[in-house]
Amino acid sequence: MAIITLTTDMGLKDHYVAAVKGAILTQQPGVQIVDISHQIKPFDNAGAAFTLGNVWPEFPKGTIHIIGVNPEADARVPHLVVVHEGHYFIGADTGIFSLLFDKKPLEAFELTLKLDADHRSFPVKNVFVKVACHLARGGTPDVIGRRVGGIRGMIGFQPATDPSSIRGKVVHVDGYGNLVTNITRKLFDDIGKGRVFEIAFASKEDAINHIHGTYTDVPDGEKVAFFGSTGLLEIAVNKGAEGHGGGAARLFGAREGSSVRVEFAERR
Amino acid sequence: MAIITLTTDMGLKDHYVAAVKGAILTQQPGVQIVDISHQIKPFDNAGAAFTLGNVWPEFPKGTIHIIGVNPEADARVPHLVVVHEGHYFIGADTGIFSLLFDKKPLEAFELTLKLDADHRSFPVKNVFVKVACHLARGGTPDVIGRRVGGIRGMIGFQPATDPSSIRGKVVHVDGYGNLVTNITRKLFDDIGKGRVFEIAFASKEDAINHIHGTYTDVPDGEKVAFFGSTGLLEIAVNKGAEGHGGGAARLFGAREGSSVRVEFAERR
Amino acid sequence: MAIITLTTDMGLKDHYVAAVKGAILTQQPGVQIVDISHQIKPFDNAGAAFTLGNVWPEFPKGTIHIIGVNPEADARVPHLVVVHEGHYFIGADTGIFSLLFDKKPLEAFELTLKLDADHRSFPVKNVFVKVACHLARGGTPDVIGRRVGGIRGMIGFQPATDPSSIRGKVVHVDGYGNLVTNITRKLFDDIGKGRVFEIAFASKEDAINHIHGTYTDVPDGEKVAFFGSTGLLEIAVNKGAEGHGGGAARLFGAREGSSVRVEFAERR
Repeated sequence: MAIITLTTDMGLKDHYVAAVKGAILTQQPGVQIVDISHQIKPFDNAGAAFTLGNVWPEFPKGTIHIIGVNPEADARVPHLVVVHEGHYFIGADTGIFSLLFDKKPLEAFELTLKLDADHRSFPVKNVFVKVACHLARGGTPDVIGRRVGGIRGMIGFQPATDPSSIRGKVVHVDGYGNLVTNITRKLFDDIGKGRVFEIAFASKEDAINHIHGTYTDVPDGEKVAFFGSTGLLEIAVNKGAEGHGGGAARLFGAREGSSVRVEFAERR
Repeated sequence: MAIITLTTDMGLKDHYVAAVKGAILTQQPGVQIVDISHQIKPFDNAGAAFTLGNVWPEFPKGTIHIIGVNPEADARVPHLVVVHEGHYFIGADTGIFSLLFDKKPLEAFELTLKLDADHRSFPVKNVFVKVACHLARGGTPDVIGRRVGGIRGMIGFQPATDPSSIRGKVVHVDGYGNLVTNITRKLFDDIGKGRVFEIAFASKEDAINHIHGTYTDVPDGEKVAFFGSTGLLEIAVNKGAEGHGGGAARLFGAREGSSVRVEFAERR
Repeated sequence: MAIITLTTDMGLKDHYVAAVKGAILTQQPGVQIVDISHQIKPFDNAGAAFTLGNVWPEFPKGTIHIIGVNPEADARVPHLVVVHEGHYFIGADTGIFSLLFDKKPLEAFELTLKLDADHRSFPVKNVFVKVACHLARGGTPDVIGRRVGGIRGMIGFQPATDPSSIRGKVVHVDGYGNLVTNITRKLFDDIGKGRVFEIAFASKEDAINHIHGTYTDVPDGEKVAFFGSTGLLEIAVNKGAEGHGGGAARLFGAREGSSVRVEFAERR
């Protein structure tokens, strides 16, 4: 049974998501539909890429992922099917595909299928669903698209480094107020080489100088840094969250885009 | 595999929706359940009708739609199964059925099935699910209901017109702040006959005098009018939304129920 | 087809819930996943128990319930599979299991399965999913766990009583603003013995002295008390809700934890 996932900024109040699901079930009865999130911030490519990028590898090979954020095509932004590690990704080539994968071997197909007149007003339903159901039936992308050389690049903000520090930023604040940064464990280890360190946001007052394994390695209500399930440096408050004593976002006064510094001690 | 959809005002926080799903899966294992929306405003028949009305035609014939807004029956409000174009709709005859369909050929059955004592405290679970599962198993409505002559009418607010203007209203503000009006393309064309026009809300300052094909026919941040996927005149801001520069609702200071005027120029 | 339900405080914005679903569908394709709620208040064991406790009996025997609130194990809090009335419950033994069941015959198994290194950072996905899929395939708990004598007790707040009154509290405020108390019909009848009564919150001004069958037994906008689908005394306003005239929470100025008193008249 094929799986189609949905990542959109459509929200759950309106009928839009259900319209997409109805169209899928009309064209390919019995397919399994999984919501990734419909609460991506409106028009936020980076947020959509963060969310889908962290979760697509959990799904089985063959899964078809519809990207319903900024789905409109124009002369310079074609609709693509991208194939990567046995997964299919359908969306507009806004640059989002380049943020989804660490490793780059991929195939990309510009959609060439003939469309009804209404495809411009609701492309997720009127274009992407057609493509997804074609793939769910075992169809191949080359039947509905023309192979292209690559995808539009989009530069994710990379941390700046010097021999004794990393300056990154908060790329995501989750529902608990946990701060996910763009600092990988590899970068942290490469620059730090085991030295003592301080992780700080705007103020150095609440600096953190230990990496734990997970939230519960510190007492309730204490701040904690660790490399989370995303593989990225994450700052949290154990059992803290908005409405529950405050999470890390509140403690550090940080939000998406806030700077975070890691400073490593001089070697003696 | 039968499909049962759910349109309710129960929200997603409480256990109510899951109780309905559990009851369905106990009575008819393997049925496919699709959430239309659980965030209809409490007790809002018109909102439920707008949401379900825009989406039921996307589903395959045979789909069973449970309407969980104002589901209580009383002496004057019976529970009905309404059959229309091969779809089944289950709800209380509050008038909502009359807002769901443009065209009227329908069959209606007042439920006569025998119920447990608890049916009054949670009719969606204790009545509608029983009916839906009966239909999902291929049962017919006449076995559980008594055919009735019609449904309760509810007058949707229709635009007022004169030879040179249409006065409609905003019937829905979606999650992006887009304003959906009750002005159809047919009405617009019938009155306008191709004349130039102005679309305005309270103030004429931000009047719109062009109908585009879709959002992206104007630059980001600009207002745009078009006939959307609902077939209704819609006013939006391209790439605008609450928390993202503001959508049309904010730009025009409009909300559900706000007036919108279309004034057509005199023929010269 | 096996059913796995999810009760978490992860919210719907982030990728966490979808990661859990992807892991399930990778390990056990075709299983039916049902969301109970992902909007349990962060770290709220009692809220999770209230929500899941009210809904698990609706599901068919054999259903597997994952409890994703405070899922971390430590030396004193093992991960358990609890079997009760043919249902499986997977979670950390924080005391939550003791709040889920009225009647106590249950079997409990402490998980002994071998885990990857990443199990500590996301136990719902990296531990509970493995267990749930084992059970969904027809596996038995004793293969992955060691039978233990019991579960950790947690004292739910019980009403205090004397011969002429009950002092309970509000255990849940639902999305409509309805107040669900911890007073059962049995307790009400045992103490009250049919006497006249007054139900009051902080002030006696709005006291209620009648138990109705359900919401709609009173006119719109009027307060009403009844034993709801949870079996608990519930106070509501018919057709009242936040944003719709105000629900009972607003009318009585009550919230979760607020006291409620029932005073019964002296026998003459």
